[in-house]
Amino acid sequence: MSRTIAELVEGALRDIPDFPAPGVLFKDITPLLADPTAFAAVIADMAARHRAVQLVAGVEARGFVIGAALAHALGVGFIPVRKAGKLPGRTASLSYDLEYGSATIEVHADDIPGGARVLLVDDVLATGGTAVAAWDLLESVGAEVTGFEVIIELAALGGRERLAGRDVHALLTV
Amino acid sequence: MSRTIAELVEGALRDIPDFPAPGVLFKDITPLLADPTAFAAVIADMAARHRAVQLVAGVEARGFVIGAALAHALGVGFIPVRKAGKLPGRTASLSYDLEYGSATIEVHADDIPGGARVLLVDDVLATGGTAVAAWDLLESVGAEVTGFEVIIELAALGGRERLAGRDVHALLTV
Repeated sequence: MSRTIAELVEGALRDIPDFPAPGVLFKDITPLLADPTAFAAVIADMAARHRAVQLVAGVEARGFVIGAALAHALGVGFIPVRKAGKLPGRTASLSYDLEYGSATIEVHADDIPGGARVLLVDDVLATGGTAVAAWDLLESVGAEVTGFEVIIELAALGGRERLAGRDVHALLTV
Repeated sequence: MSRTIAELVEGALRDIPDFPAPGVLFKDITPLLADPTAFAAVIADMAARHRAVQLVAGVEARGFVIGAALAHALGVGFIPVRKAGKLPGRTASLSYDLEYGSATIEVHADDIPGGARVLLVDDVLATGGTAVAAWDLLESVGAEVTGFEVIIELAALGGRERLAGRDVHALLTV
């Protein structure tokens, strides 16, 4: 029997104990990216659900890797969602609360045609704070965000509840 | 007559005056990434020169966008070359001098098979400091770096001289 995409993803990850804090088992995706079979399968799986999008937006920095490959697979353009101060020129920005402090993300609104159907991509769904902020930022500049794709969902952190009512898909839920 | 790839790249860039410092005309690639025709043409042009590579390595963060799409186009895996402290677990690192101060980059050596033919990618070749460091870091962990591809070469900054004897290709030289 062929493996499911979740089994393939799980088999390609590297578990790193006590990162970024003691007691946390970090799921490292870099072995998956380096594995041509797993990387291609992840991108093909995501692409199959989103044939009608016009742009793929990825969240800095690991979301750039997934998002750019996915944009290439779909034959569409790529929008980088960056941390504050990284994009030159005129940007649209949105600040949001983190567990401690806050963060700001930015996009180039000029690169997004009004009403463009945009798929949002990142590597991991954790608390969902960044995902909600990126989604809302893209919609604030006129995009229609059609969904959010991640490789891994960390279910215990409640990201899916925070994104309730939005189309969210994870290849592997842990 | 069809446009050359250099003309296509130049036409898709956005000029941003006085960034990051007064008097500097910054060449912004984000409109190119968002343009499906230009983005696909850039990736296809780079891919055509490197059919025999086994991995594509991209330098954080814009090199992730070009490199991941190129890895997908070539059907190979992707290696992120990251700033210090971003990669979990055991890493190989290399520090190098900048104009003011120094920087450190890291890779996961475990993801790179010995002797693997690796293509290095970034968006811009400026002084070449980061490119030389990334190239040498990859070779220090056993890779055979076969070349360096960038979208834009800023010729006045001398990066090509610093990379003398190595295979370097830019789509547009300014």
